[in-house]
Amino acid sequence: MYDVVTFGEAMLRLAPPDFLRLEQTNSFDVTIGGSELNSAVGVSRLGLKTAWVSSLPRSPLGRMVANKGREHGVDVSNIFWVDEGRVGVYFLEFGATPRASQVIYDRKDSAISRLKPGNVKWDKILDGTRLFHTSGITPALSESCAEATVEAVKMAKEMGCKISFDLNYRKKLWSPEKARECFAKIFDKVDILITTQFDTEDVYGMKGAYEEVAQKLRDSFGFSTVALTLREVPTVLTGTWSSMVLDGKTFLRGKTYPLEIIDRVGTGDAYTAGFIYGYLTGDIRKAIDYGDALAALCHSVPGDFSWFTEEEVTKQIRATDFKIQR
Amino acid sequence: MYDVVTFGEAMLRLAPPDFLRLEQTNSFDVTIGGSELNSAVGVSRLGLKTAWVSSLPRSPLGRMVANKGREHGVDVSNIFWVDEGRVGVYFLEFGATPRASQVIYDRKDSAISRLKPGNVKWDKILDGTRLFHTSGITPALSESCAEATVEAVKMAKEMGCKISFDLNYRKKLWSPEKARECFAKIFDKVDILITTQFDTEDVYGMKGAYEEVAQKLRDSFGFSTVALTLREVPTVLTGTWSSMVLDGKTFLRGKTYPLEIIDRVGTGDAYTAGFIYGYLTGDIRKAIDYGDALAALCHSVPGDFSWFTEEEVTKQIRATDFKIQR
Amino acid sequence: MYDVVTFGEAMLRLAPPDFLRLEQTNSFDVTIGGSELNSAVGVSRLGLKTAWVSSLPRSPLGRMVANKGREHGVDVSNIFWVDEGRVGVYFLEFGATPRASQVIYDRKDSAISRLKPGNVKWDKILDGTRLFHTSGITPALSESCAEATVEAVKMAKEMGCKISFDLNYRKKLWSPEKARECFAKIFDKVDILITTQFDTEDVYGMKGAYEEVAQKLRDSFGFSTVALTLREVPTVLTGTWSSMVLDGKTFLRGKTYPLEIIDRVGTGDAYTAGFIYGYLTGDIRKAIDYGDALAALCHSVPGDFSWFTEEEVTKQIRATDFKIQR
Amino acid sequence: MYDVVTFGEAMLRLAPPDFLRLEQTNSFDVTIGGSELNSAVGVSRLGLKTAWVSSLPRSPLGRMVANKGREHGVDVSNIFWVDEGRVGVYFLEFGATPRASQVIYDRKDSAISRLKPGNVKWDKILDGTRLFHTSGITPALSESCAEATVEAVKMAKEMGCKISFDLNYRKKLWSPEKARECFAKIFDKVDILITTQFDTEDVYGMKGAYEEVAQKLRDSFGFSTVALTLREVPTVLTGTWSSMVLDGKTFLRGKTYPLEIIDRVGTGDAYTAGFIYGYLTGDIRKAIDYGDALAALCHSVPGDFSWFTEEEVTKQIRATDFKIQR
Amino acid sequence: MYDVVTFGEAMLRLAPPDFLRLEQTNSFDVTIGGSELNSAVGVSRLGLKTAWVSSLPRSPLGRMVANKGREHGVDVSNIFWVDEGRVGVYFLEFGATPRASQVIYDRKDSAISRLKPGNVKWDKILDGTRLFHTSGITPALSESCAEATVEAVKMAKEMGCKISFDLNYRKKLWSPEKARECFAKIFDKVDILITTQFDTEDVYGMKGAYEEVAQKLRDSFGFSTVALTLREVPTVLTGTWSSMVLDGKTFLRGKTYPLEIIDRVGTGDAYTAGFIYGYLTGDIRKAIDYGDALAALCHSVPGDFSWFTEEEVTKQIRATDFKIQR
Amino acid sequence: MYDVVTFGEAMLRLAPPDFLRLEQTNSFDVTIGGSELNSAVGVSRLGLKTAWVSSLPRSPLGRMVANKGREHGVDVSNIFWVDEGRVGVYFLEFGATPRASQVIYDRKDSAISRLKPGNVKWDKILDGTRLFHTSGITPALSESCAEATVEAVKMAKEMGCKISFDLNYRKKLWSPEKARECFAKIFDKVDILITTQFDTEDVYGMKGAYEEVAQKLRDSFGFSTVALTLREVPTVLTGTWSSMVLDGKTFLRGKTYPLEIIDRVGTGDAYTAGFIYGYLTGDIRKAIDYGDALAALCHSVPGDFSWFTEEEVTKQIRATDFKIQR
Repeated sequence: MYDVVTFGEAMLRLAPPDFLRLEQTNSFDVTIGGSELNSAVGVSRLGLKTAWVSSLPRSPLGRMVANKGREHGVDVSNIFWVDEGRVGVYFLEFGATPRASQVIYDRKDSAISRLKPGNVKWDKILDGTRLFHTSGITPALSESCAEATVEAVKMAKEMGCKISFDLNYRKKLWSPEKARECFAKIFDKVDILITTQFDTEDVYGMKGAYEEVAQKLRDSFGFSTVALTLREVPTVLTGTWSSMVLDGKTFLRGKTYPLEIIDRVGTGDAYTAGFIYGYLTGDIRKAIDYGDALAALCHSVPGDFSWFTEEEVTKQIRATDFKIQR
Repeated sequence: MYDVVTFGEAMLRLAPPDFLRLEQTNSFDVTIGGSELNSAVGVSRLGLKTAWVSSLPRSPLGRMVANKGREHGVDVSNIFWVDEGRVGVYFLEFGATPRASQVIYDRKDSAISRLKPGNVKWDKILDGTRLFHTSGITPALSESCAEATVEAVKMAKEMGCKISFDLNYRKKLWSPEKARECFAKIFDKVDILITTQFDTEDVYGMKGAYEEVAQKLRDSFGFSTVALTLREVPTVLTGTWSSMVLDGKTFLRGKTYPLEIIDRVGTGDAYTAGFIYGYLTGDIRKAIDYGDALAALCHSVPGDFSWFTEEEVTKQIRATDFKIQR
Repeated sequence: MYDVVTFGEAMLRLAPPDFLRLEQTNSFDVTIGGSELNSAVGVSRLGLKTAWVSSLPRSPLGRMVANKGREHGVDVSNIFWVDEGRVGVYFLEFGATPRASQVIYDRKDSAISRLKPGNVKWDKILDGTRLFHTSGITPALSESCAEATVEAVKMAKEMGCKISFDLNYRKKLWSPEKARECFAKIFDKVDILITTQFDTEDVYGMKGAYEEVAQKLRDSFGFSTVALTLREVPTVLTGTWSSMVLDGKTFLRGKTYPLEIIDRVGTGDAYTAGFIYGYLTGDIRKAIDYGDALAALCHSVPGDFSWFTEEEVTKQIRATDFKIQR
Repeated sequence: MYDVVTFGEAMLRLAPPDFLRLEQTNSFDVTIGGSELNSAVGVSRLGLKTAWVSSLPRSPLGRMVANKGREHGVDVSNIFWVDEGRVGVYFLEFGATPRASQVIYDRKDSAISRLKPGNVKWDKILDGTRLFHTSGITPALSESCAEATVEAVKMAKEMGCKISFDLNYRKKLWSPEKARECFAKIFDKVDILITTQFDTEDVYGMKGAYEEVAQKLRDSFGFSTVALTLREVPTVLTGTWSSMVLDGKTFLRGKTYPLEIIDRVGTGDAYTAGFIYGYLTGDIRKAIDYGDALAALCHSVPGDFSWFTEEEVTKQIRATDFKIQR
Repeated sequence: MYDVVTFGEAMLRLAPPDFLRLEQTNSFDVTIGGSELNSAVGVSRLGLKTAWVSSLPRSPLGRMVANKGREHGVDVSNIFWVDEGRVGVYFLEFGATPRASQVIYDRKDSAISRLKPGNVKWDKILDGTRLFHTSGITPALSESCAEATVEAVKMAKEMGCKISFDLNYRKKLWSPEKARECFAKIFDKVDILITTQFDTEDVYGMKGAYEEVAQKLRDSFGFSTVALTLREVPTVLTGTWSSMVLDGKTFLRGKTYPLEIIDRVGTGDAYTAGFIYGYLTGDIRKAIDYGDALAALCHSVPGDFSWFTEEEVTKQIRATDFKIQR
Repeated sequence: MYDVVTFGEAMLRLAPPDFLRLEQTNSFDVTIGGSELNSAVGVSRLGLKTAWVSSLPRSPLGRMVANKGREHGVDVSNIFWVDEGRVGVYFLEFGATPRASQVIYDRKDSAISRLKPGNVKWDKILDGTRLFHTSGITPALSESCAEATVEAVKMAKEMGCKISFDLNYRKKLWSPEKARECFAKIFDKVDILITTQFDTEDVYGMKGAYEEVAQKLRDSFGFSTVALTLREVPTVLTGTWSSMVLDGKTFLRGKTYPLEIIDRVGTGDAYTAGFIYGYLTGDIRKAIDYGDALAALCHSVPGDFSWFTEEEVTKQIRATDFKIQR
């Protein structure tokens, strides 16, 4: 009986402090991150009942991953615990103009990459759940993960959940062909697609303005709602955030937020979290407003997660200046 | 026989490092801060004989507060040491656009909030002192603090000190009515008022341009000198600093300093320090020049205090570029 | 329907790193601690369904406290959230021979100190719960907390819970007279008393050998089970841990563990956690074995909490050497 | 034309600071370690010309591993750089009595595990080299590594190198049967065997006193020299180090060093380094003296490497007290 | 048989973290820096065989300096090790607008300042070397260093090396007169001069546009190639990098790079490294491209060194955006 | 009108954290230390009016040194500020058995080493002062420092001060001959000599038991009081502290304190501070009690200074166990 259930991998994130290069560092800051867990944390913090489904090894690192979701109220009781398989790791190097930030993945052979259809009790988990969310990373992890994702989406549809999907194309994990092939099996069940122009072009070769791309996506796959996010980064440490939503036949635009970027990883997932929260507690207008505000805020916080409360996001939506708050 | 005596509270300041949110942090950077101590430190470092009057508990934290003033040459021998009452604490979270920085106070029941008229030997302390300074925070701490502030200001007037006052309105501590009521008892004795348009509007509802507000203040209360400071912050981490002074009937403007903001807390107190230093060692022109330069510089240094020497401020006033100094 | 419910205060714990004195430090390591939360975390990690009841302010620090319990699976949904009252703070200075470690509390006026009978829905929370635990700290926080504690213990008895109680006498919070007066109202309902010879002497003037003291306690108050713990610390950084239990008329002794002490705060609460876990999943023999092992292990870990799994504790009980584990 | 060439894996070592548990940490100290690189570093620092042979991926982490060897003068020009395969990782948790320290390996699929016979130009590398060293870890990494190890040892023998071998049995990597099978192919070429009673018992079931075990090893495999090291650790943080050598038919004992253990990982490799250095620049007496002193010293230094100079080790061998050196 | 040999001092660099002022800090970040070592490291990392010549004391700090060069593959076997003389130190304070960054040198009486002609075996070192590089700092260190520099440059010319020279005028070390006097002895042997308009004006009083200054330098001293670098810093933390080269009679301009400045010390030396690399592996066009790119990138990395690979610099030259690299 | 005036050098102390070797570290913890400043700080904290006389350069580091004395209430208004000369530095490496801790001095050419007779206004400073203290380090710094020390001691005698002197022989600074020659000029004016058997043997070749050595010293030089301190360190991190005093013809022994050693540098100076405090506020019995207690406590605190209050030392003298203090 959850409001939102998400499904995917979370990794140990290891990042050198103070703009040190990976090759140069003597320590790593340790946090946890993974697209669908990031979104689950964001939604849970805003006040909805949320569960995250994944597979983890029985080890201190596996427990650390689960702990960090649970810390924010995310239900982790449906994780498939195993004796084999690693916790994936990703290394994050923060850059400054002209050096771009950089992510190096070391996620092969993670516990979740061995997950198979049947491992997760979807019927029990999704019973009464309002919305199921996953992203294009989950099926890209392995063949069996692709099958497990299809299984999950199908079950979610059957159980009457709304389904949201972030395209999240990772070219190091699979080819556009493989991605299209997998997506073809699930896109007819997806209600809300969240993506960027870059990913759409990479996977489907769709080019053009916001509106065109959104319309093409709707026309091709029948999504009720398509959200396109845009991060403009004239420099590595500054930029703007905005998004555009095609809901049915209506186009909506949100605010454009200026950004001083402390940590941009996970901000797309924060958008998803805010969007889902607004969607489930209001309407598309609220979805885009909370998505944009939470995404923008998330750029200012170290780590993948969006450490904000409903009250803070609401306040941000109405904020007009950047004075210190006493 | 001090050049300057200031009176007020200082607190333990606890701030997460590296833009972490309060809820998220695993450590706090510890410094000491409080408006009137900040100003005393600034003045002492510029070369004047300075004392800070307050009340502190006999404890490691109480000693830490006194130590940190003494480190900069501030005389702390007039502190009223007590067995009851806490050291106040404030939590500071550094933001980045669009997340504003945030201060949370936990200062209730501090030692100074229990201070009463008669606890401090003002006649001895202020004998031969040239200038007495306090701010609107001190009387806001408690009823007895308000009385103790009035006592101090009266005594300063009797002893022939110049009196400067920073309006420093804190709405979480008292209402505009209470503030006005208290200020009414002391403003006829104040020579120099330092404030901002925000505070003036909050307390007195005065609106309008710089010049108008300054003139209204002078006309209403008879201050010889009114200084209005302005920090413009288009983003959380960048901005400009400037100030305007109405001295008698003359308006003066200082330089407008561009800012890359490392830590903006305490910069208003640095202005006061620079202003008082210039005022006592030169004239109003020197006051505004040193006030602006010290305030601007203080934005670049972690902590409330302004760690600058007279030589450095003088050099900054004449500086024309930002090349590294070897 | 919990296995264990605990009730009490948790605080922000601020500790200088690297043996620095409080007066000397430039940073604090931040963790969360409080006797009953510490025990709840320990029990939850060992695998039982556990809830912690308390009161916290709606603030980043209040949320941090709840988060840190939730991180370990402790249910925090029964916390009484309020707008007034602080999060209590305690400062911990680590010593080395001959300097003893030192704790300074700044917990006055905390949210929980304002808790009143009626604020907590005990009937709902304790319905089906197997064991209720609190300690002598909770009623010592304020008059209304004492009443709320009596209310909770009575309700637990009515709902058929086993009740365990750690005497935990804090002389800075109340006098022996006050403590005895309060305990008189609840000790007839307590099944398991956990305490030390020091506390027993301080509150009841009972002196003598382990066995005598335990028997006096049982005879005076009718506890089914009395556990006495003993930490011997010939130096600040080394010592031994052991305990003795009088169960009905039977005396049991556990292993004596050698200790290299990294952080001794919270180890008594770890004993309680291990004891309760063993008691609810086995018998008194298991209770003392898990209590001793978890308490001993907890000395080696920074922070109040006992970061161990059931598997690790079981392994420790059987361990025979200190070789590195690969 | 090296004095010493070693062959094996080196990993990223990630260790929580300040006795934090792995599950609990927010940062990792990053160093590099691996048995044969550790020994190469030790030997190089003592003044001999040393090379380390391995395989690493072309990545920041791969470069970091090579850098850290090169920092100490180890020649890394013979590394086999590849595009596939990870840098192995090991997680190290420091314990304190009664909690043992713990190592968790995440080394599967490392670049070196894919190394095959023929990848390394042994004929060129070993030409003129005086001593070749590897350990039982290298062949345990994979089938192809086992073959590559046999290839290297054979070539070393052909090229006229002395060969030393540390048994270093890792039960998580292979079974005693597999180990024995592999060792059978190379032990007739090994001159110096370095091991412990634990490893000998695990692999060969040999039990008994020092002397017996050493003699059995020599009798079974024909080693010229057998060194057995002994670390006694009555507590996690204190202990003693000593070793015994059977050289031909002569038994030698070194000093027994008392230890305050800061970091025991890599100390066996430091023994190997000191032993080889003494062996190549003196005799067996010098070998055991430098082996013991360097191993003992290495317990006091964070990280796997032994950061000591020839002069310091010589001085330690003669040291009689622990006064501060000014 | 090196591609590049550089000659000069390297120091311990001590820098407060997090924008703390020198007077305020409780810790220093420790790295190694020195113009000619910085350039050697940059060149070595790009793939050329490089040696650095200097003098260091036999001490942990002396070894640290050599280690850090060796870590990047720089040959340090030609260092002149001595028993007398210190490792020089420089203190670096990072500023933010309007506070400029600041360097304080404590390098007097360093080992290299005592170096005399004859101490270094130049004939052996430079035999077969393609390019010799030093800067105006080396002869400024002492009278004997000036002589040793002249000796080295003469020998380099005799051995047929190309010679590059960075004017690097340090007014705290010597006067313009002294500098001109020394340069007069070596400029006829220098092929490539690298400098800035500031230094040229300080030493030679040459003013004017880029092109004029370059032409004057070529006309006065007969350099084949003159490179002028320009860092524009409208604020302390942002700016642009560009350079201009006069090669024979041809003027070349490179890209203008926007900069978010993390650490600008050593970036001029990175330019030299990139320039030399491009020059020796391509032509002047490649020299300016690699010089500019490496210099710009180096602004984003803490420490004096340029931690980049040939592949990364090449990629940067072609980069068009600042998106995160996954 | 001071109770105590001390005279000597203070340095920047740079120490790697966490037992890292100097050659290995990436950061230094920065504190200030110097025998006579250490003692001044200790005395001031115990409640006496104290001044420290030295010479420092006008620089951030010079100011830092003065600040850190002033932080503890030491009067630094008599420092001779100069434009030439460095702040001395010492590097401290913490060891663990069998690696001894190590100090490397880089103090040559410090500001104070250039101090000459006449630079300090001793007549004004010592007027009304009760006790003057210096140590054998001060005259060892340079010829002119030796003269300045003789000048100061003579003036102290003339002004009627008690004079205490810590032999503090530093063999790297001067020879026994030089030391004896200098001491011969001042020992007839010294009332209290504080030293160790090691130093006495090094300088005067005096051997034998405590009592013999003390008596020889008194007989040779006529001191009223001789204090010999003894630190026994069976391991690097544990030991005991005790002292013996010959006062006139009476021998006194203090308590023997067990020690867990966090930082032993400065503990001898803490003894001096406690001794002087007890001597000036009580008698020789009090002197030895406070000397021993403060010295023992100081071993548990990072840094040279003794961060204790009179109340804490008094409590320690009476302490009987090492339980945590709440």
